[in-house]
Amino acid sequence: MTHSSDERHHRGFIVPIGGAEDKMRDARILRRFADLCGGADARIVVIPTASETAGTGAHYAELFTSLSGAHTDVLPLNTRADCADAQNLAAIAMATGIFLTGGNQLKLSTTLGGTPAAEAIRQANRAGVHVGGTSAGAAFLPEHMIAFGRAGASPRPDMVALAPGLGLTNALLIDQHFRQRDRFGRLLSALAYNPFCVALGLDEDTAAFVSPENTFEVVGSGGITVVDPSSLEYSSMDSARKRDTVCLIGLKLHVLVHGASYDMRTRVASVGASRKSTRRAAVGPSE
Amino acid sequence: MTHSSDERHHRGFIVPIGGAEDKMRDARILRRFADLCGGADARIVVIPTASETAGTGAHYAELFTSLSGAHTDVLPLNTRADCADAQNLAAIAMATGIFLTGGNQLKLSTTLGGTPAAEAIRQANRAGVHVGGTSAGAAFLPEHMIAFGRAGASPRPDMVALAPGLGLTNALLIDQHFRQRDRFGRLLSALAYNPFCVALGLDEDTAAFVSPENTFEVVGSGGITVVDPSSLEYSSMDSARKRDTVCLIGLKLHVLVHGASYDMRTRVASVGASRKSTRRAAVGPSE
Repeated sequence: MTHSSDERHHRGFIVPIGGAEDKMRDARILRRFADLCGGADARIVVIPTASETAGTGAHYAELFTSLSGAHTDVLPLNTRADCADAQNLAAIAMATGIFLTGGNQLKLSTTLGGTPAAEAIRQANRAGVHVGGTSAGAAFLPEHMIAFGRAGASPRPDMVALAPGLGLTNALLIDQHFRQRDRFGRLLSALAYNPFCVALGLDEDTAAFVSPENTFEVVGSGGITVVDPSSLEYSSMDSARKRDTVCLIGLKLHVLVHGASYDMRTRVASVGASRKSTRRAAVGPSE
Repeated sequence: MTHSSDERHHRGFIVPIGGAEDKMRDARILRRFADLCGGADARIVVIPTASETAGTGAHYAELFTSLSGAHTDVLPLNTRADCADAQNLAAIAMATGIFLTGGNQLKLSTTLGGTPAAEAIRQANRAGVHVGGTSAGAAFLPEHMIAFGRAGASPRPDMVALAPGLGLTNALLIDQHFRQRDRFGRLLSALAYNPFCVALGLDEDTAAFVSPENTFEVVGSGGITVVDPSSLEYSSMDSARKRDTVCLIGLKLHVLVHGASYDMRTRVASVGASRKSTRRAAVGPSE
Protein backbone atom coordinates (compact mmCIF):
# COMPACT_ATOMS: atom_id res chain seq x y z
CA MET A 1 0.00 0.00 0.00
CA THR A 2 1.37 3.40 -0.88
CA HIS A 3 0.58 6.44 1.22
CA SER A 4 0.33 10.00 0.01
CA SER A 5 2.24 12.39 2.23
CA ASP A 6 -1.01 13.44 3.86
CA GLU A 7 -2.19 9.92 4.59
CA ARG A 8 1.15 9.05 6.11
CA HIS A 9 0.26 11.06 9.21
CA HIS A 10 -2.83 8.93 9.93
CA ARG A 11 -2.70 5.99 12.27
CA GLY A 12 -4.12 2.78 10.80
CA PHE A 13 -7.42 1.30 11.99
CA ILE A 14 -7.45 -0.77 15.18
CA VAL A 15 -9.90 -3.66 14.85
CA PRO A 16 -10.72 -5.73 17.95
CA ILE A 17 -13.08 -8.68 17.33
CA GLY A 18 -15.01 -10.43 20.14
CA GLY A 19 -13.94 -13.94 19.04
CA ALA A 20 -15.73 -16.72 17.12
CA GLU A 21 -16.25 -14.50 14.07
CA ASP A 22 -18.13 -16.06 11.17
CA LYS A 23 -15.81 -17.75 8.67
CA MET A 24 -18.29 -19.98 6.80
CA ARG A 25 -21.09 -17.72 5.58
CA ASP A 26 -20.41 -14.14 4.49
CA ALA A 27 -17.43 -13.65 6.85
CA ARG A 28 -18.20 -9.96 6.87
CA ILE A 29 -15.76 -8.95 9.60
CA LEU A 30 -12.73 -10.72 8.09
CA ARG A 31 -13.74 -9.66 4.57
CA ARG A 32 -14.03 -6.04 5.65
CA PHE A 33 -10.65 -6.18 7.37
CA ALA A 34 -9.02 -7.64 4.23
CA ASP A 35 -10.70 -5.02 2.02
CA LEU A 36 -9.59 -2.24 4.38
CA CYS A 37 -5.99 -3.50 4.07
CA GLY A 38 -6.10 -3.22 0.29
CA GLY A 39 -8.12 -6.19 -1.01
CA ALA A 40 -6.17 -7.96 -3.74
CA ASP A 41 -3.25 -5.57 -3.12
CA ALA A 42 -3.15 -6.27 0.62
CA ARG A 43 -0.21 -7.90 2.38
CA ILE A 44 -1.60 -9.32 5.61
CA VAL A 45 0.70 -10.70 8.28
CA VAL A 46 -0.99 -13.24 10.57
CA ILE A 47 0.53 -13.67 14.04
CA PRO A 48 -0.73 -16.90 15.66
CA THR A 49 1.33 -16.55 18.87
CA ALA A 50 -1.70 -16.69 21.21
CA SER A 51 -2.93 -20.01 19.84
CA GLU A 52 -2.02 -23.45 21.14
CA THR A 53 -3.47 -25.05 17.99
CA ALA A 54 -1.15 -25.76 15.05
CA GLY A 55 -2.62 -24.51 11.82
CA THR A 56 -4.51 -21.52 13.27
CA GLY A 57 -2.28 -19.05 11.45
CA ALA A 58 -2.48 -20.90 8.13
CA HIS A 59 -6.27 -21.09 8.44
CA TYR A 60 -6.59 -17.29 8.73
CA ALA A 61 -4.07 -16.78 5.93
CA GLU A 62 -6.16 -18.99 3.60
CA LEU A 63 -9.33 -17.18 4.63
CA PHE A 64 -7.92 -13.72 3.88
CA THR A 65 -6.61 -14.88 0.51
CA SER A 66 -9.89 -16.53 -0.46
CA LEU A 67 -11.99 -13.56 0.71
CA SER A 68 -10.08 -10.79 -1.03
CA GLY A 69 -7.10 -12.19 -2.91
CA ALA A 70 -4.73 -10.71 -0.30
CA HIS A 71 -1.13 -11.83 -0.10
CA THR A 72 -0.57 -13.34 3.37
CA ASP A 73 2.33 -14.34 5.59
CA VAL A 74 2.13 -16.37 8.78
CA LEU A 75 4.79 -15.19 11.25
CA PRO A 76 5.89 -17.86 13.73
CA LEU A 77 6.60 -15.61 16.72
CA ASN A 78 6.87 -18.43 19.25
CA THR A 79 9.80 -17.18 21.32
CA ARG A 80 11.24 -13.82 22.32
CA ALA A 81 14.18 -14.55 19.99
CA ASP A 82 11.70 -14.90 17.08
CA CYS A 83 10.51 -11.38 17.94
CA ALA A 84 13.97 -9.97 17.20
CA ASP A 85 14.51 -11.98 13.98
CA ALA A 86 15.32 -9.74 11.00
CA GLN A 87 13.18 -11.69 8.53
CA ASN A 88 10.13 -11.48 10.78
CA LEU A 89 10.67 -7.74 11.31
CA ALA A 90 10.99 -7.23 7.54
CA ALA A 91 7.65 -9.00 7.01
CA ILE A 92 5.98 -6.66 9.54
CA ALA A 93 7.55 -3.64 7.82
CA MET A 94 6.10 -4.79 4.45
CA ALA A 95 2.55 -5.38 5.73
CA THR A 96 -0.55 -3.35 4.95
CA GLY A 97 -2.43 -5.25 7.67
CA ILE A 98 -1.49 -7.26 10.77
CA PHE A 99 -3.83 -9.81 12.36
CA LEU A 100 -3.47 -11.47 15.78
CA THR A 101 -5.34 -14.73 16.31
CA GLY A 102 -7.11 -15.87 19.48
CA GLY A 103 -5.78 -18.10 22.25
CA ASN A 104 -4.15 -16.78 25.43
CA GLN A 105 -3.39 -13.07 25.67
CA LEU A 106 -0.65 -13.67 28.26
CA LYS A 107 1.18 -15.72 25.60
CA LEU A 108 1.16 -12.58 23.46
CA SER A 109 2.27 -10.18 26.20
CA THR A 110 5.01 -12.45 27.59
CA THR A 111 6.37 -13.34 24.12
CA LEU A 112 6.08 -9.98 22.32
CA GLY A 113 6.30 -7.53 25.25
CA GLY A 114 9.37 -5.30 25.07
CA THR A 115 10.68 -6.88 21.82
CA PRO A 116 11.49 -5.28 18.44
CA ALA A 117 8.43 -7.03 16.94
CA ALA A 118 6.05 -5.24 19.34
CA GLU A 119 7.72 -1.92 18.55
CA ALA A 120 7.51 -2.67 14.81
CA ILE A 121 3.75 -3.31 15.06
CA ARG A 122 3.20 -0.05 16.98
CA GLN A 123 5.30 1.83 14.44
CA ALA A 124 3.42 0.26 11.50
CA ASN A 125 0.06 1.20 13.03
CA ARG A 126 1.23 4.79 13.59
CA ALA A 127 2.26 4.89 9.92
CA GLY A 128 -1.16 3.78 8.66
CA VAL A 129 -1.09 -0.04 8.77
CA HIS A 130 -4.31 -1.62 10.07
CA VAL A 131 -4.04 -3.97 13.05
CA GLY A 132 -6.79 -6.42 13.97
CA GLY A 133 -7.14 -9.20 16.49
CA THR A 134 -9.76 -11.68 17.60
CA SER A 135 -10.44 -12.78 21.19
CA ALA A 136 -7.01 -12.87 22.90
CA GLY A 137 -5.67 -10.96 19.90
CA ALA A 138 -8.25 -8.23 20.57
CA ALA A 139 -7.55 -8.14 24.31
CA PHE A 140 -3.84 -7.55 23.65
CA LEU A 141 -4.24 -4.47 21.38
CA PRO A 142 -4.61 -1.61 23.93
CA GLU A 143 -2.22 -0.22 26.54
CA HIS A 144 -4.22 -1.82 29.38
CA MET A 145 -5.19 -5.45 28.76
CA ILE A 146 -7.65 -7.64 30.65
CA ALA A 147 -5.44 -10.68 31.30
CA PHE A 148 -7.96 -12.92 33.05
CA GLY A 149 -10.83 -12.76 35.54
CA ARG A 150 -14.09 -14.18 36.84
CA ALA A 151 -17.59 -14.30 35.33
CA GLY A 152 -20.56 -12.44 36.81
CA ALA A 153 -22.69 -9.38 36.27
CA SER A 154 -21.70 -7.04 39.10
CA PRO A 155 -18.23 -5.63 39.76
CA ARG A 156 -15.97 -6.74 42.60
CA PRO A 157 -12.34 -5.80 43.33
CA ASP A 158 -11.05 -9.37 42.92
CA MET A 159 -12.75 -10.07 39.59
CA VAL A 160 -10.18 -9.04 37.03
CA ALA A 161 -6.42 -9.00 36.41
CA LEU A 162 -4.99 -6.25 34.22
CA ALA A 163 -1.59 -6.32 32.52
CA PRO A 164 0.17 -4.07 30.04
CA GLY A 165 -0.86 -4.86 26.47
CA LEU A 166 0.60 -4.03 23.05
CA GLY A 167 -0.12 -0.33 23.54
CA LEU A 168 -1.71 0.73 20.25
CA THR A 169 -4.15 2.98 22.16
CA ASN A 170 -5.12 3.83 25.71
CA ALA A 171 -8.47 5.30 24.69
CA LEU A 172 -10.29 2.02 25.39
CA LEU A 173 -10.43 -1.13 27.48
CA ILE A 174 -11.56 -4.30 25.69
CA ASP A 175 -13.31 -7.45 26.85
CA GLN A 176 -14.43 -10.17 24.44
CA HIS A 177 -16.77 -13.21 24.30
CA PHE A 178 -18.75 -10.65 26.27
CA ARG A 179 -22.33 -11.92 26.36
CA GLN A 180 -21.30 -15.52 25.90
CA ARG A 181 -19.09 -15.58 29.01
CA ASP A 182 -20.98 -13.22 31.35
CA ARG A 183 -18.27 -10.57 31.58
CA PHE A 184 -20.12 -7.36 32.43
CA GLY A 185 -18.93 -7.37 36.05
CA ARG A 186 -15.32 -7.90 35.07
CA LEU A 187 -15.41 -5.07 32.52
CA LEU A 188 -16.90 -2.72 35.14
CA SER A 189 -14.29 -3.84 37.68
CA ALA A 190 -11.47 -3.10 35.24
CA LEU A 191 -12.93 0.32 34.48
CA ALA A 192 -13.56 1.14 38.14
CA TYR A 193 -9.86 0.88 39.03
CA ASN A 194 -9.25 4.05 37.03
CA PRO A 195 -12.23 5.40 35.10
CA PHE A 196 -10.15 7.26 32.51
CA CYS A 197 -11.21 5.63 29.25
CA VAL A 198 -14.11 3.96 27.45
CA ALA A 199 -14.73 0.24 28.11
CA LEU A 200 -15.98 -2.02 25.30
CA GLY A 201 -17.57 -5.44 25.80
CA LEU A 202 -17.45 -7.22 22.43
CA ASP A 203 -19.84 -10.09 21.78
CA GLU A 204 -18.68 -12.98 19.61
CA ASP A 205 -18.77 -12.36 15.84
CA THR A 206 -18.72 -8.61 16.50
CA ALA A 207 -15.96 -6.10 15.80
CA ALA A 208 -15.18 -2.45 16.43
CA PHE A 209 -13.46 -0.80 13.44
CA VAL A 210 -11.68 2.03 15.28
CA SER A 211 -10.70 4.81 12.87
CA PRO A 212 -7.62 7.05 13.14
CA GLU A 213 -9.97 9.73 14.54
CA ASN A 214 -11.00 7.36 17.39
CA THR A 215 -14.53 6.83 16.10
CA PHE A 216 -15.56 3.20 15.73
CA GLU A 217 -18.23 1.44 13.71
CA VAL A 218 -19.82 -1.83 14.82
CA VAL A 219 -19.63 -4.74 12.35
CA GLY A 220 -21.12 -8.19 12.98
CA SER A 221 -24.03 -10.16 14.36
CA GLY A 222 -23.77 -9.33 18.07
CA GLY A 223 -23.51 -6.20 20.21
CA ILE A 224 -20.85 -3.96 21.65
CA THR A 225 -21.56 -2.80 25.19
CA VAL A 226 -19.98 0.62 25.76
CA VAL A 227 -19.40 1.95 29.29
CA ASP A 228 -18.44 5.63 29.47
CA PRO A 229 -17.21 6.82 32.91
CA SER A 230 -16.86 10.51 31.98
CA SER A 231 -19.72 11.52 34.28
CA LEU A 232 -18.93 9.05 37.06
CA GLU A 233 -19.66 10.73 40.39
CA TYR A 234 -18.65 8.06 42.85
CA SER A 235 -16.79 4.74 43.00
CA SER A 236 -16.13 2.62 46.09
CA MET A 237 -13.37 0.60 44.40
CA ASP A 238 -10.78 2.02 46.80
CA SER A 239 -12.66 0.97 49.95
CA ALA A 240 -14.53 -2.20 48.88
CA ARG A 241 -13.30 -5.51 50.30
CA LYS A 242 -12.22 -8.13 47.76
CA ARG A 243 -15.61 -9.83 47.44
CA ASP A 244 -17.80 -6.78 48.02
CA THR A 245 -19.82 -5.44 45.13
CA VAL A 246 -18.35 -2.10 44.04
CA CYS A 247 -20.68 0.93 44.18
CA LEU A 248 -20.57 3.03 40.97
CA ILE A 249 -22.77 6.11 40.44
CA GLY A 250 -23.19 7.97 37.17
CA LEU A 251 -21.91 5.67 34.42
CA LYS A 252 -23.24 5.99 30.88
CA LEU A 253 -24.11 2.80 29.01
CA HIS A 254 -24.84 2.01 25.37
CA VAL A 255 -25.42 -1.28 23.58
CA LEU A 256 -24.54 -0.85 19.90
CA VAL A 257 -25.20 -3.20 16.98
CA HIS A 258 -24.13 -3.53 13.35
CA GLY A 259 -23.94 -0.16 11.61
CA ALA A 260 -23.92 1.95 14.79
CA SER A 261 -20.94 4.12 15.60
CA TYR A 262 -19.34 5.79 18.61
CA ASP A 263 -17.02 8.77 18.86
CA MET A 264 -14.60 8.09 21.71
CA ARG A 265 -13.46 11.74 21.87
CA THR A 266 -16.92 13.33 22.18
CA ARG A 267 -18.41 10.15 23.73
CA VAL A 268 -21.42 10.35 21.41
CA ALA A 269 -23.12 7.20 20.02
CA SER A 270 -25.23 7.12 16.88
CA VAL A 271 -27.37 4.45 15.28
CA GLY A 272 -25.70 4.92 11.93
CA ALA A 273 -27.12 5.94 8.56
CA SER A 274 -27.51 2.42 7.23
CA ARG A 275 -29.37 1.35 10.36
CA LYS A 276 -31.79 4.27 10.32
CA SER A 277 -32.78 3.61 6.70
CA THR A 278 -33.12 -0.12 7.36
CA ARG A 279 -35.44 0.59 10.24
CA ARG A 280 -37.59 2.97 8.25
CA ALA A 281 -37.87 0.39 5.51
CA ALA A 282 -38.82 -2.33 8.00
CA VAL A 283 -41.59 -0.24 9.55
CA GLY A 284 -42.86 0.69 6.13
CA PRO A 285 -43.85 4.05 4.72
CA SER A 286 -45.62 6.08 7.40
CA GLU A 287 -47.39 8.47 5.10
CA MET B 1 8.84 29.34 37.69
CA THR B 2 9.60 30.85 34.31
CA HIS B 3 10.76 28.73 31.41
CA SER B 4 12.94 29.80 28.53
CA SER B 5 11.56 28.69 25.21
CA ASP B 6 14.05 25.82 25.16
CA GLU B 7 13.26 24.61 28.65
CA ARG B 8 9.58 24.66 27.89
CA HIS B 9 10.02 21.51 25.82
CA HIS B 10 11.40 19.54 28.77
CA ARG B 11 9.17 17.38 30.90
CA GLY B 12 9.53 17.99 34.64
CA PHE B 13 11.18 15.45 36.95
CA ILE B 14 9.15 12.48 38.17
CA VAL B 15 10.07 11.63 41.76
CA PRO B 16 8.72 8.40 43.27
CA ILE B 17 9.65 7.84 46.96
CA GLY B 18 9.44 4.44 48.65
CA GLY B 19 7.49 5.74 51.67
CA ALA B 20 8.47 6.63 55.26
CA GLU B 21 10.99 9.24 54.09
CA ASP B 22 12.96 11.01 56.80
CA LYS B 23 11.24 14.21 57.99
CA MET B 24 13.04 14.76 61.32
CA ARG B 25 16.75 14.77 60.57
CA ASP B 26 18.12 16.18 57.32
CA ALA B 27 14.99 15.30 55.27
CA ARG B 28 17.19 15.10 52.22
CA ILE B 29 14.58 13.70 49.83
CA LEU B 30 11.90 16.29 50.61
CA ARG B 31 14.48 19.09 50.76
CA ARG B 32 15.87 18.12 47.38
CA PHE B 33 12.36 17.99 45.88
CA ALA B 34 11.57 21.47 47.27
CA ASP B 35 14.88 22.85 45.99
CA LEU B 36 14.28 21.31 42.56
CA CYS B 37 10.89 23.06 42.44
CA GLY B 38 12.51 26.44 43.01
CA GLY B 39 13.39 26.65 46.73
CA ALA B 40 12.04 29.90 48.18
CA ASP B 41 10.41 30.66 44.79
CA ALA B 42 8.65 27.29 44.60
CA ARG B 43 4.88 26.88 44.61
CA ILE B 44 4.23 23.31 45.73
CA VAL B 45 0.74 21.83 45.57
CA VAL B 46 0.21 18.94 48.00
CA ILE B 47 -2.51 16.43 47.10
CA PRO B 48 -3.44 14.31 50.15
CA THR B 49 -6.18 12.28 48.39
CA ALA B 50 -4.60 8.88 49.15
CA SER B 51 -4.49 9.48 52.89
CA GLU B 52 -7.18 8.57 55.42
CA THR B 53 -5.51 10.75 58.04
CA ALA B 54 -6.64 14.36 58.44
CA GLY B 55 -3.69 16.72 58.53
CA THR B 56 -1.41 14.71 56.23
CA GLY B 57 -1.54 17.40 53.56
CA ALA B 58 -0.92 20.23 56.01
CA HIS B 59 2.01 18.34 57.52
CA TYR B 60 3.78 18.07 54.15
CA ALA B 61 2.96 21.69 53.33
CA GLU B 62 4.60 22.84 56.58
CA LEU B 63 7.62 20.64 55.92
CA PHE B 64 8.19 22.03 52.42
CA THR B 65 7.87 25.60 53.69
CA SER B 66 10.24 25.03 56.61
CA LEU B 67 12.80 23.18 54.45
CA SER B 68 13.04 25.68 51.60
CA GLY B 69 10.68 28.58 52.15
CA ALA B 70 8.39 27.28 49.40
CA HIS B 71 4.87 28.59 49.03
CA THR B 72 2.50 25.64 49.46
CA ASP B 73 -1.15 24.82 48.80
CA VAL B 74 -3.03 21.77 50.04
CA LEU B 75 -5.65 20.71 47.47
CA PRO B 76 -8.59 18.84 48.97
CA LEU B 77 -9.33 16.51 46.03
CA ASN B 78 -11.69 14.24 47.95
CA THR B 79 -14.35 13.66 45.29
CA ARG B 80 -14.50 13.48 41.52
CA ALA B 81 -16.36 16.81 41.59
CA ASP B 82 -13.39 18.40 43.44
CA CYS B 83 -11.22 17.23 40.51
CA ALA B 84 -13.21 19.43 38.11
CA ASP B 85 -13.30 22.49 40.40
CA ALA B 86 -11.93 25.60 38.69
CA GLN B 87 -10.06 26.85 41.77
CA ASN B 88 -8.29 23.53 42.23
CA LEU B 89 -7.35 23.41 38.55
CA ALA B 90 -6.00 26.97 38.76
CA ALA B 91 -3.80 25.98 41.71
CA ILE B 92 -2.37 23.08 39.69
CA ALA B 93 -1.74 25.41 36.73
CA MET B 94 0.23 27.81 39.01
CA ALA B 95 2.42 25.11 40.61
CA THR B 96 6.14 24.57 40.08
CA GLY B 97 5.87 21.26 41.93
CA ILE B 98 3.10 18.77 42.74
CA PHE B 99 3.36 16.24 45.58
CA LEU B 100 1.09 13.24 46.24
CA THR B 101 1.05 11.85 49.78
CA GLY B 102 0.84 8.19 50.79
CA GLY B 103 -2.22 6.16 51.73
CA ASN B 104 -4.18 4.02 49.25
CA GLN B 105 -3.31 4.27 45.56
CA LEU B 106 -6.80 3.06 44.55
CA LYS B 107 -8.20 6.17 46.28
CA LEU B 108 -6.04 8.22 43.90
CA SER B 109 -6.97 6.30 40.74
CA THR B 110 -10.71 6.12 41.49
CA THR B 111 -10.92 9.79 42.53
CA LEU B 112 -8.61 11.44 39.97
CA GLY B 113 -8.80 8.96 37.05
CA GLY B 114 -10.34 10.52 33.93
CA THR B 115 -10.87 13.95 35.56
CA PRO B 116 -9.61 17.41 34.52
CA ALA B 117 -7.28 17.41 37.55
CA ALA B 118 -5.45 14.28 36.30
CA GLU B 119 -5.13 15.83 32.85
CA ALA B 120 -3.88 19.10 34.40
CA ILE B 121 -1.15 17.25 36.32
CA ARG B 122 -0.02 15.40 33.18
CA GLN B 123 -0.01 18.65 31.24
CA ALA B 124 1.97 20.45 33.97
CA ASN B 125 4.57 17.68 34.05
CA ARG B 126 4.92 17.80 30.24
CA ALA B 127 5.47 21.57 30.55
CA GLY B 128 8.30 21.21 33.09
CA VAL B 129 6.57 21.01 36.49
CA HIS B 130 8.08 18.40 38.83
CA VAL B 131 5.76 15.73 40.24
CA GLY B 132 6.66 13.64 43.29
CA GLY B 133 4.83 11.12 45.39
CA THR B 134 5.52 8.91 48.36
CA SER B 135 4.28 5.34 48.88
CA ALA B 136 0.78 5.24 47.32
CA GLY B 137 1.59 8.59 45.72
CA ALA B 138 4.65 6.99 44.07
CA ALA B 139 2.72 3.90 42.94
CA PHE B 140 0.16 6.10 41.17
CA LEU B 141 2.63 8.08 39.02
CA PRO B 142 3.21 5.74 36.02
CA GLU B 143 0.86 4.44 33.33
CA HIS B 144 0.78 0.96 34.92
CA MET B 145 0.26 0.98 38.71
CA ILE B 146 0.67 -1.86 41.20
CA ALA B 147 -2.69 -1.62 43.00
CA PHE B 148 -2.23 -4.35 45.61
CA GLY B 149 -0.69 -7.79 46.00
CA ARG B 150 0.91 -10.41 48.21
CA ALA B 151 4.31 -10.54 49.95
CA GLY B 152 7.01 -13.07 49.06
CA ALA B 153 10.26 -13.38 47.18
CA SER B 154 9.38 -15.43 44.11
CA PRO B 155 6.89 -14.51 41.39
CA ARG B 156 3.48 -16.16 40.96
CA PRO B 157 0.62 -15.23 38.61
CA ASP B 158 -1.81 -14.44 41.46
CA MET B 159 0.54 -12.18 43.40
CA VAL B 160 -0.21 -8.76 42.07
CA ALA B 161 -3.05 -6.60 40.76
CA LEU B 162 -2.26 -3.91 38.20
CA ALA B 163 -4.47 -0.94 37.35
CA PRO B 164 -4.04 2.15 35.18
CA GLY B 165 -2.21 4.92 37.05
CA LEU B 166 -1.79 8.65 36.46
CA GLY B 167 0.20 8.02 33.28
CA LEU B 168 3.18 10.38 33.61
CA THR B 169 5.45 7.69 32.08
CA ASN B 170 5.29 4.11 30.93
CA ALA B 171 9.05 3.66 31.06
CA LEU B 172 8.90 2.15 34.54
CA LEU B 173 6.91 0.07 37.02
CA ILE B 174 7.16 1.09 40.68
CA ASP B 175 6.83 -0.82 43.93
CA GLN B 176 7.48 0.79 47.30
CA HIS B 177 8.18 -0.18 50.96
CA PHE B 178 10.18 -2.71 48.97
CA ARG B 179 12.55 -4.35 51.43
CA GLN B 180 10.35 -3.63 54.41
CA ARG B 181 7.34 -5.51 52.99
CA ASP B 182 9.05 -8.33 51.06
CA ARG B 183 7.84 -7.31 47.61
CA PHE B 184 10.43 -8.74 45.22
CA GLY B 185 8.10 -11.50 44.02
CA ARG B 186 5.25 -9.12 43.35
CA LEU B 187 7.47 -6.74 41.37
CA LEU B 188 8.75 -9.67 39.25
CA SER B 189 5.16 -10.89 38.76
CA ALA B 190 4.05 -7.47 37.55
CA LEU B 191 6.99 -7.27 35.16
CA ALA B 192 6.51 -10.82 33.88
CA TYR B 193 3.00 -10.07 32.55
CA ASN B 194 4.59 -7.88 29.89
CA PRO B 195 8.36 -7.35 30.18
CA PHE B 196 8.37 -4.06 28.26
CA CYS B 197 9.79 -1.61 30.82
CA VAL B 198 12.13 -1.28 33.78
CA ALA B 199 10.81 -2.27 37.24
CA LEU B 200 11.93 -0.35 40.34
CA GLY B 201 11.59 -1.58 43.91
CA LEU B 202 11.99 1.44 46.20
CA ASP B 203 12.98 0.91 49.82
CA GLU B 204 11.59 3.26 52.45
CA ASP B 205 13.32 6.66 52.74
CA THR B 206 14.63 6.21 49.18
CA ALA B 207 13.67 8.11 46.03
CA ALA B 208 14.36 8.01 42.29
CA PHE B 209 14.75 11.50 40.80
CA VAL B 210 13.80 10.69 37.19
CA SER B 211 15.06 13.38 34.81
CA PRO B 212 13.36 14.53 31.59
CA GLU B 213 15.92 12.35 29.74
CA ASN B 214 14.73 9.27 31.68
CA THR B 215 17.89 8.91 33.75
CA PHE B 216 17.33 8.67 37.48
CA GLU B 217 19.53 9.31 40.49
CA VAL B 218 19.04 7.52 43.80
CA VAL B 219 18.57 9.72 46.88
CA GLY B 220 18.09 8.41 50.42
CA SER B 221 19.15 5.85 53.00
CA GLY B 222 17.91 2.62 51.36
CA GLY B 223 18.25 0.93 48.00
CA ILE B 224 16.47 0.82 44.68
CA THR B 225 16.25 -2.65 43.14
CA VAL B 226 16.19 -2.37 39.34
CA VAL B 227 14.97 -5.27 37.18
CA ASP B 228 15.67 -4.90 33.45
CA PRO B 229 13.89 -7.43 31.21
CA SER B 230 15.50 -6.31 27.93
CA SER B 231 17.45 -9.56 27.59
CA LEU B 232 14.70 -11.84 28.96
CA GLU B 233 14.79 -15.09 27.00
CA TYR B 234 11.90 -16.97 28.52
CA SER B 235 8.91 -16.46 30.80
CA SER B 236 6.31 -19.05 31.83
CA MET B 237 3.80 -16.41 32.97
CA ASP B 238 1.37 -17.43 30.22
CA SER B 239 1.32 -21.11 31.21
CA ALA B 240 1.91 -21.06 34.99
CA ARG B 241 -1.04 -21.94 37.24
CA LYS B 242 -2.08 -19.28 39.75
CA ARG B 243 0.11 -20.49 42.61
CA ASP B 244 3.00 -21.84 40.53
CA THR B 245 6.30 -20.02 40.67
CA VAL B 246 6.90 -18.31 37.34
CA CYS B 247 10.07 -19.31 35.44
CA LEU B 248 12.05 -16.27 34.17
CA ILE B 249 15.37 -16.62 32.33
CA GLY B 250 17.73 -13.79 31.47
CA LEU B 251 16.72 -10.83 33.67
CA LYS B 252 19.27 -8.18 34.62
CA LEU B 253 19.32 -6.98 38.21
CA HIS B 254 20.93 -4.02 39.98
CA VAL B 255 20.68 -2.76 43.55
CA LEU B 256 21.49 0.96 43.61
CA VAL B 257 22.11 3.25 46.57
CA HIS B 258 22.43 6.97 47.25
CA GLY B 259 24.34 8.75 44.50
CA ALA B 260 24.06 5.96 41.91
CA SER B 261 22.21 6.56 38.68
CA TYR B 262 20.49 4.58 35.93
CA ASP B 263 19.76 5.44 32.33
CA MET B 264 16.41 3.86 31.44
CA ARG B 265 16.97 4.32 27.69
CA THR B 266 20.39 2.63 27.45
CA ARG B 267 19.70 0.49 30.56
CA VAL B 268 23.13 1.32 32.00
CA ALA B 269 23.70 1.75 35.76
CA SER B 270 26.58 3.68 37.30
CA VAL B 271 27.77 4.13 40.85
CA GLY B 272 27.84 7.91 40.55
CA ALA B 273 30.69 10.36 40.89
CA SER B 274 29.90 11.31 44.49
CA ARG B 275 29.84 7.66 45.51
CA LYS B 276 33.16 6.81 43.92
CA SER B 277 34.95 9.68 45.67
CA THR B 278 33.27 8.90 49.01
CA ARG B 279 34.46 5.34 48.74
CA ARG B 280 38.00 6.35 48.02
CA ALA B 281 37.97 8.70 51.00
CA ALA B 282 36.57 6.04 53.31
CA VAL B 283 39.26 3.56 52.38
CA GLY B 284 41.89 6.19 52.86
CA PRO B 285 44.75 7.21 50.63
CA SER B 286 46.24 4.13 49.00
CA GLU B 287 49.64 5.56 48.24
